Amino acid sequence: MQAKAYATQSATAKFGPFTIERREPGPADVAIDILYCGVCHSDLHIARNEWGGANYPCVPGHEIVGRVSAVGTKVTKVKVGDLAGVGCLVGSCRTCTSCGEGLEQFCETPGGQILTYNSITPDGKNTYGGYSDAIVVDEHFVLRIKHSEKDLAAVAPLLCAGITAWSPLRKWNVGPGQTIGVVGIGGLGHMGIKLARALGARVVAFTTSESKRQDALKLGANEVIVSKDAAAMQAQAGTLDFILNTVAASHNLDAFLNLLKRDGVMVLLGVPSTPHPSPSTRALVRKRRQLAGSIIGGIPETQEMLDFCAERGIVSDVETIAMQDIEKAYERMLQSDVKYRFVIDMATLKAG
Amino acid sequence: MQAKAYATQSATAKFGPFTIERREPGPADVAIDILYCGVCHSDLHIARNEWGGANYPCVPGHEIVGRVSAVGTKVTKVKVGDLAGVGCLVGSCRTCTSCGEGLEQFCETPGGQILTYNSITPDGKNTYGGYSDAIVVDEHFVLRIKHSEKDLAAVAPLLCAGITAWSPLRKWNVGPGQTIGVVGIGGLGHMGIKLARALGARVVAFTTSESKRQDALKLGANEVIVSKDAAAMQAQAGTLDFILNTVAASHNLDAFLNLLKRDGVMVLLGVPSTPHPSPSTRALVRKRRQLAGSIIGGIPETQEMLDFCAERGIVSDVETIAMQDIEKAYERMLQSDVKYRFVIDMATLKAG
Repeated sequence: MQAKAYATQSATAKFGPFTIERREPGPADVAIDILYCGVCHSDLHIARNEWGGANYPCVPGHEIVGRVSAVGTKVTKVKVGDLAGVGCLVGSCRTCTSCGEGLEQFCETPGGQILTYNSITPDGKNTYGGYSDAIVVDEHFVLRIKHSEKDLAAVAPLLCAGITAWSPLRKWNVGPGQTIGVVGIGGLGHMGIKLARALGARVVAFTTSESKRQDALKLGANEVIVSKDAAAMQAQAGTLDFILNTVAASHNLDAFLNLLKRDGVMVLLGVPSTPHPSPSTRALVRKRRQLAGSIIGGIPETQEMLDFCAERGIVSDVETIAMQDIEKAYERMLQSDVKYRFVIDMATLKAG
Repeated sequence: MQAKAYATQSATAKFGPFTIERREPGPADVAIDILYCGVCHSDLHIARNEWGGANYPCVPGHEIVGRVSAVGTKVTKVKVGDLAGVGCLVGSCRTCTSCGEGLEQFCETPGGQILTYNSITPDGKNTYGGYSDAIVVDEHFVLRIKHSEKDLAAVAPLLCAGITAWSPLRKWNVGPGQTIGVVGIGGLGHMGIKLARALGARVVAFTTSESKRQDALKLGANEVIVSKDAAAMQAQAGTLDFILNTVAASHNLDAFLNLLKRDGVMVLLGVPSTPHPSPSTRALVRKRRQLAGSIIGGIPETQEMLDFCAERGIVSDVETIAMQDIEKAYERMLQSDVKYRFVIDMATLKAG
């Protein structure tokens, strides 16, 4: 079956209309008419080959929501007409230890993991993501969506930004009685604030810009610290149980490690293009602190997060754009000029 | 009461005989005739003021074993004639959260923690450590020793090297079914190998020198990897549940982080004088790995470790020296020419 899409043909080309071939749904497959797709910073990195390894034509997009249009004979998770989502993964080996534990993001089989876009499938084809009007995905990687349909655009970013924040919050048991820090108030950070508050923690948001203070409070932060304010930072020393550090740019990790209590954990979600300055071993040793990393999340925990958010009416803060404006959106994203996620209304692609 | 000791009067002076004043035992105090004292690398760092903040005269030594010579009226832990030990701590606030949890090494009250030597007490006095024939210590910081007396010299290093390896092994639940790495085969590392094996883990020892292979196997390592052998290192990628990294010199942490399985933890026990190269965020993120620090241990876990070792006949590998040979021992320690800990026989001080 053919699908309309937007693709870029090289690291320097502009995006434009492109027709892609989606496979006919097999017995375990779900076909989805894509209604909205979030714009993740990694879309830009890969489209422009900033991380290397980009495959062209490139159709990004891994924050996909839509309506089920067809299901294979063995599909039980969703039925035609249901709302459904697809995140960063469309395949994994399903047999290794991590897959067995529902942590498909850590699939241990070389070549076993298939990302929603820019991944080469066993039959040698490049995967095409959500900048498209339709997708066909094995039901294992399809998520049920219980939010009301009017919220659908704002649900899309939960599939990557949401789960990326949620997975470490759950892994490290963030909840009532704890004070946690969220560093950076962007796509990931704004979800980190919302989810950590909803999990019952007290949230201190850290930003480099005074102008984000009011926004962070509105998002649910109990307190906001401008990280350039040395005295305000010092006042937080040794007070945090956990830190969700969403900043991908290289920065001084010690400034935040020193805010952790004994046994506190700081989880890095961003991978800087130039390394962070080396963290202080003394800061780790003195209070048995831990520096960790985390990446997206597995399918069961993605479903858990979506259900949690649906029950509580939690969605992302989004700005809806037309497919044709993707280049403009990338430029604004580079200026951090988005609160807090662009979401493509795929009706504009069908219309275009 | 007066005690014989060996002290240095400045960062550049040689050690020599020195008479110190110990307090009369109060109701909660234990007086100990010191029989042996281990020589820790930090003794040298502090005696020579390499970390700054040294107080002179300086009497190092925090791996103290001996026999109880007097007890205060309220002492219940030991009686006169018992073998007893003192480690790195002789005081803490006893009221903060960490002290309440028996983690006195993380005492949170400013000035609350009193180290066995080179620490200023509330009444303004410098503490003098185990290079001495007697010490008076609050019973809370006195450890019971159940080893047989003939092993006593080899028990001394358990009070610092032993507990420093033990505390993270217990904190991170190292045990049967796990494969763990021990990086560096020195004072800390040789105890790490012995203790991790005794706890039931499979142990892979990492050393820079082929010459230590046989020794590491004798200490109990199941496998030994020379870390300069890139192919041997590559073969261990993603295989370790936990790494005890005892190397204080600045080194490439990624070489070891990449050996951890998903959710694996590497604990740093050494604080380098120049920072390690910055660890790869990608190595942390890709498998949700953790880089942590740990420092000595609390009193309850020190007792637990001593009892565990006594039951299993575990001691350190030591070379006994005379007090008068301390400078020579420091020079050999700097050459890593010790298997694996010097212990001062305090009879030589009394004789001298």
